[in-house]
Order: sequence, then C-alpha cells, then structure tokens
Amino acid sequence: MIDYKSAGVDIDAGNEAVRRIKHLARSTFTPGVLSEIGTFGGLFRLEPGRFADPVLVASADGVGTKLKVAFLAGRHDTVGEDLVNHCVNDILVQGARPLFFLDYLATGRLSPEVTEQVVTGIARGCRDNQCALLGGETAEMPGFYAPGEYDLAGFIVGVVDRERLIDGRRLAPGDVLIGLPSTGLHTNGYSLARRIVFDTLGLGVDAQIEEVGETVGEALLRVHASYLPAIAPLLDEPGLVRALAHITGGGITENLPRVLPEGCQASIDKGAWEVPPLFTFLEKAGGVPEDDMYRTFNMGIGLIVGCAAADVDRVLARIGPLPGPGPRVIGELVSGPREVRYRGTRS
Amino acid sequence: MIDYKSAGVDIDAGNEAVRRIKHLARSTFTPGVLSEIGTFGGLFRLEPGRFADPVLVASADGVGTKLKVAFLAGRHDTVGEDLVNHCVNDILVQGARPLFFLDYLATGRLSPEVTEQVVTGIARGCRDNQCALLGGETAEMPGFYAPGEYDLAGFIVGVVDRERLIDGRRLAPGDVLIGLPSTGLHTNGYSLARRIVFDTLGLGVDAQIEEVGETVGEALLRVHASYLPAIAPLLDEPGLVRALAHITGGGITENLPRVLPEGCQASIDKGAWEVPPLFTFLEKAGGVPEDDMYRTFNMGIGLIVGCAAADVDRVLARIGPLPGPGPRVIGELVSGPREVRYRGTRS
Repeated sequence: MIDYKSAGVDIDAGNEAVRRIKHLARSTFTPGVLSEIGTFGGLFRLEPGRFADPVLVASADGVGTKLKVAFLAGRHDTVGEDLVNHCVNDILVQGARPLFFLDYLATGRLSPEVTEQVVTGIARGCRDNQCALLGGETAEMPGFYAPGEYDLAGFIVGVVDRERLIDGRRLAPGDVLIGLPSTGLHTNGYSLARRIVFDTLGLGVDAQIEEVGETVGEALLRVHASYLPAIAPLLDEPGLVRALAHITGGGITENLPRVLPEGCQASIDKGAWEVPPLFTFLEKAGGVPEDDMYRTFNMGIGLIVGCAAADVDRVLARIGPLPGPGPRVIGELVSGPREVRYRGTRS
Repeated sequence: MIDYKSAGVDIDAGNEAVRRIKHLARSTFTPGVLSEIGTFGGLFRLEPGRFADPVLVASADGVGTKLKVAFLAGRHDTVGEDLVNHCVNDILVQGARPLFFLDYLATGRLSPEVTEQVVTGIARGCRDNQCALLGGETAEMPGFYAPGEYDLAGFIVGVVDRERLIDGRRLAPGDVLIGLPSTGLHTNGYSLARRIVFDTLGLGVDAQIEEVGETVGEALLRVHASYLPAIAPLLDEPGLVRALAHITGGGITENLPRVLPEGCQASIDKGAWEVPPLFTFLEKAGGVPEDDMYRTFNMGIGLIVGCAAADVDRVLARIGPLPGPGPRVIGELVSGPREVRYRGTRS
C-alpha cells in the first residue's frame, strides 16, 4: 500500500506550515487586503478613485545562490527579506509603490520550522515596505532539492499613476547620476563570490574576513536594501526624478543602460565613492578582472538616480533614509552610444 | 582568474534565452500591456472606468513533480501550459479573469533551447487565456538542480468587480454541485503517481498502459485544463454561480470545503461520473486506499460549480466548451459539518 506520505509528501507537515504562515501573513495585511490566506487566490482591492489612470507594475525574482550561504550558515530568516526588497526596488524604479507580494517556496521535504523562518523574513520585508503578503505556494517536491535545501522566488505587484511613471525617456546629456549605497552584494554575484570564498580560499562560513571585519556568513548574508524609504519622498514631486536603475545582476555596467535613451552614454567616475572592502577582498582573492567586477557586482552602489543638473541639490536634500553613507554624484550623461563608460580611479 | 562564466553562470546563454523569450512573450501581449520585456518591472494599464470597484486576484503556483515526467520524456513545451492553466483556474474560481502572468524558471545550467520550449508552453497557455506574459525571471543556479532539471513557478493577476466576486458565502443546504471533467491528473498527485508507475511497476516513460490506451508519458503529461472558456459565460450573469472550487492537491475532499460556509456539508455521489481509467489503474497498481485516492487525485473532476437548485438547468445550458465529457450534477449541499461526504459507488 502506498499513500501520499510514504511517497514523500507530508500533508500534515504542509498543513502545520500553512498554519504558521497564515499568522505571519496576517501581520502584513494592509487595508486593501480583502481575503484571508487559504482561498484559491488572494484578493486586493484597488481603492476606487485613488488613481486617475492606474498602471500595475509587476516583477518576479529569485534569491539566487545566496541561498547556499543561508544553508551553510543555517540562517533562514533573512533571505525572504532579501527577496522582498529586491522586488520592491524593481518596481520602485518605475515609480511604483508596492501593493502586494506572493512567494514560491520549493523544497524536497518540508520542515515547518525552516518554512516558518523563511516566511518570517518575507513578512518582515513586507511589513517594512507596507506591502501585503497576499499568498504563495509552498511546494514539497521529493527528489528535486538536496536535503535541507530549497528554492525561493517572489512576485510583486505595485501601482503608479500613468503620468507619474518613471522610465528614463526624459534623460538627456548633461543630466546627473546620483548613487545610493548598497549594503553588501545584495542578491547578485553569489556564484562567483562563493567560488572565491569557499572553493578558492577554502574558508568556512564562520571564518573571519579580516579586511571586512566580519565573518563570511555575516558579510555574505547582509540583507539587500530596500530603497523605498529613500526614494518615496522624491516620487511626491512629479518630474524631479528622470530615471532610476536598480543595480542587480550585471552590475552598473549592464543595469544602467536599461534606462538610458538612445544616444545617451553614462560616464561614471570610479573615484566618486569608496568601494566597500568586501568587493576589493573578492577582487584580489579571486584575481577577478576589474571589468568583470563592475559587470557582476554592485561595487557599493545599489540604486542610481538620474535627474537634471539643476535639480541635483533638491534631489540630494529630499532623499529619505539610506542604509549606509549618504547619496553622492557618481557621474553624468554625455552624448554617445547607450552604454556605461568608467573614468577616474577608485578611491 | 575567475570570471562569472567559469563560476557556472553563463551571461551570454542568458542573453540568448532572453532574446528568445522576448519574442514569445510579445505574442501574448494584450492591449493593457505598456512595456516591453526587459525593463525592471512589467507594466499593465488597468483601463480606467472599466471596473467600478476593481479587486485584483492573485495566485502563485508551481508545476510540482509533474516536471520529473517531462524530464524523463524530454518534452518541455507542455509544463508551461499546465502552469498557466492551473493559475487561471485558481483566480477564476473567485470570479476573476486573467490580466497578466509572470514565470520563474530556475535551473542549474541554462539551456536556451529548453528555456525556449518551456516558455513556448507558457506563451501558448497565456494566449489561449487572453493573459499577457508580462515578465519573469530565468535563474541559473549552479549546484541547485540536477543536470537537465529545472523548477518552474508562475504568478497570475486577474481582476473582478467587487460585486461580482465569487466566494461561496451564499451557498446553502439544497444547493447543487456540478462537476466539470478533468483532462488527467492535472498537476497534482505526481509524487504518488510516479512512485507507483516508475518505482513499483518499473515502467518506462514510453511503456504502453493497456488500461488507459496511452503511453506513461502521454497519460501523465496530459495538459491541465483551463476552465475559463467553460465558466466565462456564467460570469456574465451575476449571482448565477454561488461557488467554484478548483480541484487541485488534496482532491475533492480537501478543495471543496475551502468554499463551503459553516454548517454546509457536500454530499458527493461517487456514481455520478465515470472515473477515468488512469485513476483506477493507479489505484489498483499502487494498492492505494480509496479515501487516499479522493484526497490526492481529482478523480476525473477538475472544477466544481455550486448553484441554486432552481438554476441548475440554466448553468448546464450556459457552460462553455469543455475538455471532455459534459458537465454533470455530482452532488448537493446538506446541513452538517463543513466537509465532504461521499455516497454511492463508482460507476
């Protein structure tokens, strides 16, 4: 006799996990939420009349191999926050504020404890961004994941009035680029970082990195920053911000061009900010060419704001709370092919 | 020297995959889509004035271990359709029509060909449901997935006017339950089915199942039905449908109670429909207790419609195109604890 449990799927553990998740999800509910978790779809009411011409902005993301560091460290309550913040930034750069989030958590064998820790991080991220955790899927998939491992993806929906959409179209040569500090690697470049730290250097997750003043686990698990608190005050003044770029996989080199119009080149002064020691540590230890560094890691800049030269002071004055050092001008736009060129030397 | 490619992440293969996906995604675009794929978030305009009080309905889902059958069969262009249809049904049961879909595709090493096949299925599912493929994440995660394997999750957002929300609240004893045929296992019960077919019986994916008249691969990869064409005509008549239940993991036993009000019990006549031979084959071959069958598999019923007894004929007459045999009355509501009770014997 074969029943579902002996086939590797534990419905009771699943129900226990759902019970724990419900409680956490409820802690994130905003006034728009109409449903309890557990119905087939989550319900979110778009306040009538609030937006003249509402545009929904949606994004899907994963945490990538940063998860492997979480497995090694046995720390599961921060990757969910990474994921939410990453998603929040991806819609924020088009001018949208988050409405709701859904997660997908897949594992070989469901541990209600680990599930709860992961969702604790998701819920914290959602609360901090006033974003409702509206639902999700927790999948037990025997034979897909190594014991103790899981994959995690997230999906966010936000809204912006059409006339307030930010898309970089108004950028022009002479405009200025302002960089906001990242908190670490965020969620990108982990396959390379892990190879350097664990394979090349043979470090354990608890090893101290002298140059960084933290353990490997601490440094690599630093939570991806949400730039909503910093950027929200700017959104209240339509037209002030001409472009926003979230510096994710591909670094400044590949992400900034995504918001540049044809004929606009970004000239970035590498000396304008101090590259945090974690990046220089990885660069040296891995012998990674500098070009690869800038097209793999964020190098200390998590988000770039583009604005008119005349507005720089107003933008700098209005930027809200940041996770690290203050915002700084890191470059400007010039005429040229739609790409990033670096100048200067790192400070 | 370590660069990103030698660390297991192939950005060029990623870019090639993105190029192929863009083309497929564009084929699904509906008038609401404002953006091209490739910006940070996908943009969908909610037609102003179209809804008096719009409620967004969202759901996240995976394909589960049905993927393992696709890997064995080397057939990757149907699981995406499974996923879209599953998601469409999950919001349809609350009265919502789909607006847009995003996917998450994670793999150890990215094959542009397999990625294209998977997204081909997603795009087909989206087009068939008038749902825009607005974006997604394709993640290359070295060391997470076995060679040739991947995981796939989907997120859908639909909309319904608040006064047309379907939630089962108006169900009452005396109401009638109508069953719509499934096309196969849909996307649930695969861990158990695979154990029976591959482990217990030792069948290959090309083996013929005599009782079913198909190969293992054909029978187990039958695409999850979308019930949008069947149900859409009913949504145009507010109040006609009192509840809709999508029969997914947990079968009729666990899914139908999700839409029942307190004090309402579903009495299901097991003799009201013919259980398709694939289910009886699995039941016998695995020695699976009948109770477990009904709380694991859909047993031939993919969606249940609840309506007033006086409306049954109108509902039956208005139901749109179905994937198999016609709709049929399979039970009714009685007073009692909020659960499913079965009666009769299977025909």
